[in-house]
Amino acid sequence: MKLWMKFKMKPRGYYFGAGPAMLPEEILREAQQGLLNWDGQGVSILEIGHRTEAFMGLMKDTEERARNILDIPADYAVLFLGGSARSLFGTIPLNILQENEKVAYIVTGSWSKMAFSEGQKLLKDSAYILGSSESLQFTDIPDSLEPLQPLTRFVYFCPNETIHGVRFQSPKELEDIPWVADMTSCLFSEPIDIKRYGLIFAGAQKNIANAGMTLVIVRKDWLENPPAHVLPTMMDLRIHLAHESLYATPPTFNCYLANLMMQWIEKQGGVNTLNMINQEKANMLYDFLDQSHNYKAVVAARARSLMNVCFTTGDEHKDAKLLEKADKNGLYGLKGHKVLGGLRASLYNAMPLAGVETLISFLKNQ
Amino acid sequence: MKLWMKFKMKPRGYYFGAGPAMLPEEILREAQQGLLNWDGQGVSILEIGHRTEAFMGLMKDTEERARNILDIPADYAVLFLGGSARSLFGTIPLNILQENEKVAYIVTGSWSKMAFSEGQKLLKDSAYILGSSESLQFTDIPDSLEPLQPLTRFVYFCPNETIHGVRFQSPKELEDIPWVADMTSCLFSEPIDIKRYGLIFAGAQKNIANAGMTLVIVRKDWLENPPAHVLPTMMDLRIHLAHESLYATPPTFNCYLANLMMQWIEKQGGVNTLNMINQEKANMLYDFLDQSHNYKAVVAARARSLMNVCFTTGDEHKDAKLLEKADKNGLYGLKGHKVLGGLRASLYNAMPLAGVETLISFLKNQ
Repeated sequence: MKLWMKFKMKPRGYYFGAGPAMLPEEILREAQQGLLNWDGQGVSILEIGHRTEAFMGLMKDTEERARNILDIPADYAVLFLGGSARSLFGTIPLNILQENEKVAYIVTGSWSKMAFSEGQKLLKDSAYILGSSESLQFTDIPDSLEPLQPLTRFVYFCPNETIHGVRFQSPKELEDIPWVADMTSCLFSEPIDIKRYGLIFAGAQKNIANAGMTLVIVRKDWLENPPAHVLPTMMDLRIHLAHESLYATPPTFNCYLANLMMQWIEKQGGVNTLNMINQEKANMLYDFLDQSHNYKAVVAARARSLMNVCFTTGDEHKDAKLLEKADKNGLYGLKGHKVLGGLRASLYNAMPLAGVETLISFLKNQ
Repeated sequence: MKLWMKFKMKPRGYYFGAGPAMLPEEILREAQQGLLNWDGQGVSILEIGHRTEAFMGLMKDTEERARNILDIPADYAVLFLGGSARSLFGTIPLNILQENEKVAYIVTGSWSKMAFSEGQKLLKDSAYILGSSESLQFTDIPDSLEPLQPLTRFVYFCPNETIHGVRFQSPKELEDIPWVADMTSCLFSEPIDIKRYGLIFAGAQKNIANAGMTLVIVRKDWLENPPAHVLPTMMDLRIHLAHESLYATPPTFNCYLANLMMQWIEKQGGVNTLNMINQEKANMLYDFLDQSHNYKAVVAARARSLMNVCFTTGDEHKDAKLLEKADKNGLYGLKGHKVLGGLRASLYNAMPLAGVETLISFLKNQ
């Protein structure tokens, strides 16, 4: 019997959960200090007022670091919003579409499918599908796209589908129309050409901070006209822009963690370096799976996510046993999403190469 | 020169900020442990998945404790939503009002005024004012209310106006109609008769947890009919009820802190005991202010908040000097809200009697 079982206390291990996800341990240790007395302010980061000079300085610093890391042009706003990224499914079309305009969705997994459903619910025929791989159970990306309809304002897609482990690289053939992307599980994992996008958003709980915040990067000129619909004020991105993310009380602790994470990303060498490491981690695992007779990767080679690697033994019971054994070996959170089953190893920025090596060596020995 | 000034590090003191607000130090210390390895799960509370058995157990436990503490009947739902309480200003009327129904607002400070504005924006003439003390600059409550209009579904009010320090006790004359209340800054500070309410909501950052979560207590039968409007899915309380607050990724860390806070409230003896202490704290401070020649309380005696005590020296410059000196003495966060100026001492559950005594003794000696 292992020591932790005796005390019912598992040691920290490698956490492969898809989000909330693993965070760098040095950030967790730093945050422990901030919980009691942050920045020598005499109060906890959980307590300090969001309109104090110290906290507003933190917000400004976080924004500047994010801008530098991602090379965000000055004519884009960066917003830190409370709540979940899912809210943006409705917020985006209601904020951006003007009378008679349409939005085209590329559906490559659960998340883009839900975004399309929400667009359709709120805007009826103004939302349409440009391409979908649903008939392939989202194990691949669409081979081709339909033609754009007139008055299409933007194309919406999700470059990394967390549940299905599908990567959809930017649709370069759609050059003449701005893109809007749900980058919840890939923002800050690789460089991006921001100028191609009208709006990018990401829930914080993968590569940014903990759950409860959503980052939005949006072209300021997209928010110059009043919305075509009467919007609940908290859904109006213009309001959050005008108040620099402080219209309502922001999720202060998440903002603080995001600051620590931006500093950590800088220390790693930025998104170019992280992208190289992320490619190495994912390649190593996919290569092992492809060569193995005991496991197989679920997604077609050309569409494989670098962040979420879905695989299976091909047998439900074996998968379950494997999960149990992995957990006892300090390899946590490997269970696939409930809609899909199997296993999923999420390899966000905070997962070190050593974590992937340990996972592979564990899988080999089963 | 004090030691902390030398090291630019203030010691922890009494934090009188209005929200985010002071938290019990024992909770902060417990949370420090949870940041690295929560509950022996081998992962941080910031990392653990919201659909794990351990986390769902935490949610269930938090709800049960909240139900016991506030004596919430079984036919009421308790929801833990991500984001700020301000979202509820729109969410409530859009969810609850049926065709032709109206909502009556009692306006006693900035927050109920903003709730009314949002109701009016979204629902036009369906929102009307039943009584207001705006002409008194919110230094008192309205003397009388207008008659209710036909088809009024509920009366909306804010029992504790955080900015103006105004307490509005339940409108007992309005017996025949359900109440809806923004209890952001008073929930869990006193016992309440839940059955009189159709819906109660509260942002977490005063007496519940840290900023980024909103607690909603709502009669389940209010959510039985479909909404009269097409709602963005994340605004539909029916969805959150059906998914037991796990439709989207919840703000997991805030849920955890709420659990620690519920345990702390139980240890203090529950809301009856806390209410007695809260009354004692507020009375002590108001008595001192009333007897002093150097300070005066801003709000009329009958309308004084137990949670937020607004006062001033009567001179802007003296107020500013006082704030500075208080800060150097470990009495933090006493600055009044920017719309009002002056000073404000917030005395939520976590502020001990000793904190109020220290504040009074400091004020005496100026």
